[in-house]
Amino acid sequence: MSWNTFGRVLRFTTWGESHGPAIGAVVDGCPPGIALTESDIQPFLDARKPGQNKFTTQRQEPDAVRILSGVFEGRTTGTPISLMIENTDQRSKDYSEIANTYRPGHADYAYDAKYGFRDYRGGGRSSARETAMRVAAGAVARKVIGEVSIIAYVAEIGGDAIDPANFDAQEIQRNPFWCPDADAAKRWEALVDNARKAGSSLGAVVECVATGVPAGWGAPIYAKLDADLAAGMMSINAVKGVEIGDGFAAARLTGEQNADPMRPGNDGPRFEANHAGGIAGGISTGQPVTCRVAFKPTSSILAPVESVTREGKATEVRTKGRHDPCVGIRGTPVVEAMMALVLADHKALHRAQCG
Amino acid sequence: MSWNTFGRVLRFTTWGESHGPAIGAVVDGCPPGIALTESDIQPFLDARKPGQNKFTTQRQEPDAVRILSGVFEGRTTGTPISLMIENTDQRSKDYSEIANTYRPGHADYAYDAKYGFRDYRGGGRSSARETAMRVAAGAVARKVIGEVSIIAYVAEIGGDAIDPANFDAQEIQRNPFWCPDADAAKRWEALVDNARKAGSSLGAVVECVATGVPAGWGAPIYAKLDADLAAGMMSINAVKGVEIGDGFAAARLTGEQNADPMRPGNDGPRFEANHAGGIAGGISTGQPVTCRVAFKPTSSILAPVESVTREGKATEVRTKGRHDPCVGIRGTPVVEAMMALVLADHKALHRAQCG
Amino acid sequence: MSWNTFGRVLRFTTWGESHGPAIGAVVDGCPPGIALTESDIQPFLDARKPGQNKFTTQRQEPDAVRILSGVFEGRTTGTPISLMIENTDQRSKDYSEIANTYRPGHADYAYDAKYGFRDYRGGGRSSARETAMRVAAGAVARKVIGEVSIIAYVAEIGGDAIDPANFDAQEIQRNPFWCPDADAAKRWEALVDNARKAGSSLGAVVECVATGVPAGWGAPIYAKLDADLAAGMMSINAVKGVEIGDGFAAARLTGEQNADPMRPGNDGPRFEANHAGGIAGGISTGQPVTCRVAFKPTSSILAPVESVTREGKATEVRTKGRHDPCVGIRGTPVVEAMMALVLADHKALHRAQCG
Amino acid sequence: MSWNTFGRVLRFTTWGESHGPAIGAVVDGCPPGIALTESDIQPFLDARKPGQNKFTTQRQEPDAVRILSGVFEGRTTGTPISLMIENTDQRSKDYSEIANTYRPGHADYAYDAKYGFRDYRGGGRSSARETAMRVAAGAVARKVIGEVSIIAYVAEIGGDAIDPANFDAQEIQRNPFWCPDADAAKRWEALVDNARKAGSSLGAVVECVATGVPAGWGAPIYAKLDADLAAGMMSINAVKGVEIGDGFAAARLTGEQNADPMRPGNDGPRFEANHAGGIAGGISTGQPVTCRVAFKPTSSILAPVESVTREGKATEVRTKGRHDPCVGIRGTPVVEAMMALVLADHKALHRAQCG
Repeated sequence: MSWNTFGRVLRFTTWGESHGPAIGAVVDGCPPGIALTESDIQPFLDARKPGQNKFTTQRQEPDAVRILSGVFEGRTTGTPISLMIENTDQRSKDYSEIANTYRPGHADYAYDAKYGFRDYRGGGRSSARETAMRVAAGAVARKVIGEVSIIAYVAEIGGDAIDPANFDAQEIQRNPFWCPDADAAKRWEALVDNARKAGSSLGAVVECVATGVPAGWGAPIYAKLDADLAAGMMSINAVKGVEIGDGFAAARLTGEQNADPMRPGNDGPRFEANHAGGIAGGISTGQPVTCRVAFKPTSSILAPVESVTREGKATEVRTKGRHDPCVGIRGTPVVEAMMALVLADHKALHRAQCG
Repeated sequence: MSWNTFGRVLRFTTWGESHGPAIGAVVDGCPPGIALTESDIQPFLDARKPGQNKFTTQRQEPDAVRILSGVFEGRTTGTPISLMIENTDQRSKDYSEIANTYRPGHADYAYDAKYGFRDYRGGGRSSARETAMRVAAGAVARKVIGEVSIIAYVAEIGGDAIDPANFDAQEIQRNPFWCPDADAAKRWEALVDNARKAGSSLGAVVECVATGVPAGWGAPIYAKLDADLAAGMMSINAVKGVEIGDGFAAARLTGEQNADPMRPGNDGPRFEANHAGGIAGGISTGQPVTCRVAFKPTSSILAPVESVTREGKATEVRTKGRHDPCVGIRGTPVVEAMMALVLADHKALHRAQCG
Repeated sequence: MSWNTFGRVLRFTTWGESHGPAIGAVVDGCPPGIALTESDIQPFLDARKPGQNKFTTQRQEPDAVRILSGVFEGRTTGTPISLMIENTDQRSKDYSEIANTYRPGHADYAYDAKYGFRDYRGGGRSSARETAMRVAAGAVARKVIGEVSIIAYVAEIGGDAIDPANFDAQEIQRNPFWCPDADAAKRWEALVDNARKAGSSLGAVVECVATGVPAGWGAPIYAKLDADLAAGMMSINAVKGVEIGDGFAAARLTGEQNADPMRPGNDGPRFEANHAGGIAGGISTGQPVTCRVAFKPTSSILAPVESVTREGKATEVRTKGRHDPCVGIRGTPVVEAMMALVLADHKALHRAQCG
Repeated sequence: MSWNTFGRVLRFTTWGESHGPAIGAVVDGCPPGIALTESDIQPFLDARKPGQNKFTTQRQEPDAVRILSGVFEGRTTGTPISLMIENTDQRSKDYSEIANTYRPGHADYAYDAKYGFRDYRGGGRSSARETAMRVAAGAVARKVIGEVSIIAYVAEIGGDAIDPANFDAQEIQRNPFWCPDADAAKRWEALVDNARKAGSSLGAVVECVATGVPAGWGAPIYAKLDADLAAGMMSINAVKGVEIGDGFAAARLTGEQNADPMRPGNDGPRFEANHAGGIAGGISTGQPVTCRVAFKPTSSILAPVESVTREGKATEVRTKGRHDPCVGIRGTPVVEAMMALVLADHKALHRAQCG
């Protein structure tokens, strides 16, 4: 079954294929009375948009969002907010190869195995183009959780990590990598450019921090805040791992090393170490909520990879043309959006039971 | 809001507190006509049960499960299956300390922040005791997906990993660590025993592999198989990270290194490298579905940790008494159960749309 | 698929068969801090309980409810509330006839057609015994909506209706028919007793009124308050029709006759005519929420009815033994419970978005 | 909270306001490989469309539907189907009166009470214009349940009922009232025309019959087929009552009169009386599924009705202009669509558990 809705109370549904006439999202359950116009959403789409520099795909899409419902006289009405982006860069091109050959690392074979056939143009529904609508919906979610600040950044490309000592939040917007470490950004320029020129690709790790989340959000046991974040992040194209707080590193610590001492604070206890990433028992603790997301390298590469045809014959696939050398970079605004969407939903969930 | 149901079509709901009269689960949506008795479930509970050796908590619970509904003349009827375990080892003990002091690393403060007060006895609802019911529900799920074999094992304790070259599936049942590497199991004996004696604790990484999953399970975009696995695993107590296939390691590879070449097979293409962990675009590919789960070290340790009281005063917490030195060990059957539950749900989901 | 959960935010799940060891419900999403003990629930179960007079079935069940989780020191904790009633009156009896013959008007054939076989003892899962757990869950819901008063009563038996001019709320508890009209109650005594003696049965109409519902509850478009009430009421055994406000009578009126004039009030407009039954556009208007529910006559009658066996052979069914001559009577507390459950859920839903 | 999604497995979400730029629906969970084009949907929209004769509102909307996703090369792909209709007849008009005055019988006050303000133009989200998208989604659902035939018709207007003896299915398409009784259609012409000229309005009863539904659809206990039908029908604008089978009439029968004798048939038992309307225990019996739906008279009438302003002052409302004298007429295709949508969802639900 297809299942294109995310969230429990503040929910959104996306639709659309890479090369169809348009893509869209319906955001349902948004509180009424919130100021909202296209200009609240567009900047986030522009940040994700391809073709902005040589480190991302050259596909050109203006990605201009329209609000088709749910807003009246500049404010949300509480009814579903329909968002739509028309697809404009649908190059007429010969898709016969991709139609008959499964691209390794892509969803081509899996979709065929599930549905019997597929819209193969640009990956159809499995294309990362769908994430544009998460970014649009995420912009609405941000308005709902005005008390929270969210920032995501690339912490690692191809195994080359930032130095936490160099962390500068201002830097993130200054380079094409959403990199908070100016030195790392410089290194990555060569790294990513070389990969691009070689028709190769690189994986990345994206970190996301939400500050201002009050203690008490999260719905045990099966809508734990961390579980919903894990689902949301893992559903992003090319993501293969999610960590909350120290994540896998915590598995290598002792109880003493991983302890989160609590001290009296003005507004509830403070846990400065915050190994837990701001979540205990699935509920926010009032500390920053942190997660890390692993993106695999783009599967489309120039080097030939063995594959099979729809008919089951052996073949080989090489990818020429427009592709991101490192999908993690453009995934960064998507991670931010998913954090916003999960938190906005949990704010509503919390209010429903404890409001 | 509390949210104690997991799954979309084949769903289960758990209830119960650590020190209440009983804990239970209701499994809804199970296909009719499946042979099921308590003896199909009990062995899995016995595997998870505490007090079996010195490496796990000494709390003694027979954990005898009863089927209260949904089964008639030894077969499932298609109506909800109610499972219950009575709590028997509820030591009368003085809980005044835990009632007034937040145990660092536990959910005590978060529950209070959310709900205003909490059942503090043994952690109440936030206790890992809840996972017994996942294991019971998981045993039902296994019957639903008879075509699939699932195995979980501990791959790493306190940073000491198994050697894949030593992997022996038979070994897993032979040592108290669910360890597939006899050499590692020997090393862990000292490692975990030392931690136990010192009142310390260790983290662990658990791996889980499901073979026999046909291509086509998984519901894009927001019920992707990997997203649901991530949610299910992250909702287990003490889990801080989830990886599918190569996970974070993939983020350090190039596209060439991470490629999953496909070759013609008898029953669909084969992807021997299977970096993807058997899932592409959120849909199973017919390869083994693999995931890795990070458990933090048990938060209850003998060493004092700074904390605060309910009244917000500084204090210190030391934990004496029965606790697992490494919760990842007893988490292993829970990981296996969650894999079974997610797959059984997705089998139903797939059938609903494409059956 | 089976689907034994009702509600969207404050949800409950029931389980259990007529002749299994127990029946139960899990109420999830209840706000924390509400005083709750078994004695808050038991009176409602006692009201529904069979065997209290000659006008209801002589089956004897003490129906003693136990709270197994979700309550600590007399208050709800916000975690799932597990309620259980042990089945005690499971007469050992020969079920071979009912096992092989479909009782007309019952779910026997439909369950077999769906599931391939069924627990035939006393109707199994399709027995009205399940409604005991709705009454128990409804008692919890009532505590959640302390601002609302709910009253249900029988308005009509076998076509003999109460006279609104005789309506006396005090009377409802004074007769075995939940009848607010003392004259009608007297007439019904003979009517129902004759049906009982003849082995016949009678249909009934139950009305339910909730006062104190504030304006604004209800979630357009597909969780309208009236739509959820319709679903909840129609899911009660033997119910064949639901009306909100004037219901079918409104279909015979002109716009002028059906108009709901509004006048200024202290706390929002007043609509004294209230043809709409307190709901407009699926949202409560602040007026009393009213509905009417049609119960068919009990299908089990002494007169022979043509039927077929499991093997498809023609046969005949006559029902001897313990049965309600008018199921609508014992359905009255169930209608009240469903009203409470729908309203409690919608209070939470409203708070989630607009709280 | 707003809740604009209907269905459990095959689900649809609608969005849009009466006077916004467009309205739309997203149908999720549709099986793949079904032939579908706009021309499969348009005829149903044309049937519902206003302005076709003097018995319905004169608002002119071409209501041309576009499929924006989920269909490739003329067949459904299994991904969400986005349907959109642009609003074209948005007369520029002075809405200041409706903005400040609550129209009795409409949702104006309830929306304000819930959301604090509302899109008042043409009723905004509460307008029956939303039902156009149900009709569009229903056309998709019909393709999913090709084995089922659905027909709805008006059985009663203003208390004047059809004569079952005159029933002629062919007649339904021949008159502007979806009336199967040629004599009644003739009478209604005068009846409705008089109401229209007088600025008055009339209620109606719509009946719907689905034949070809196999035994076994329906998901006890809380997704009973009749409960979901009740919810779906009651959510249609202006509906105040729903009956399954004999409905309220059954409440006036004895058990003998209401009996549904079963006789051996070729394909399961036959129940010729079918008082139950094809559903027992919430599950289809293989007999025709029948329901009746009560529409109140249009609330907008020429006669003055007392009302209040947003500021709570007494006022009076008279409605001039384009309105349906009997909304039940145009509700008929909507009833048909909801029947199709509920059945298609239940086909999938059944397959999920028992497929």
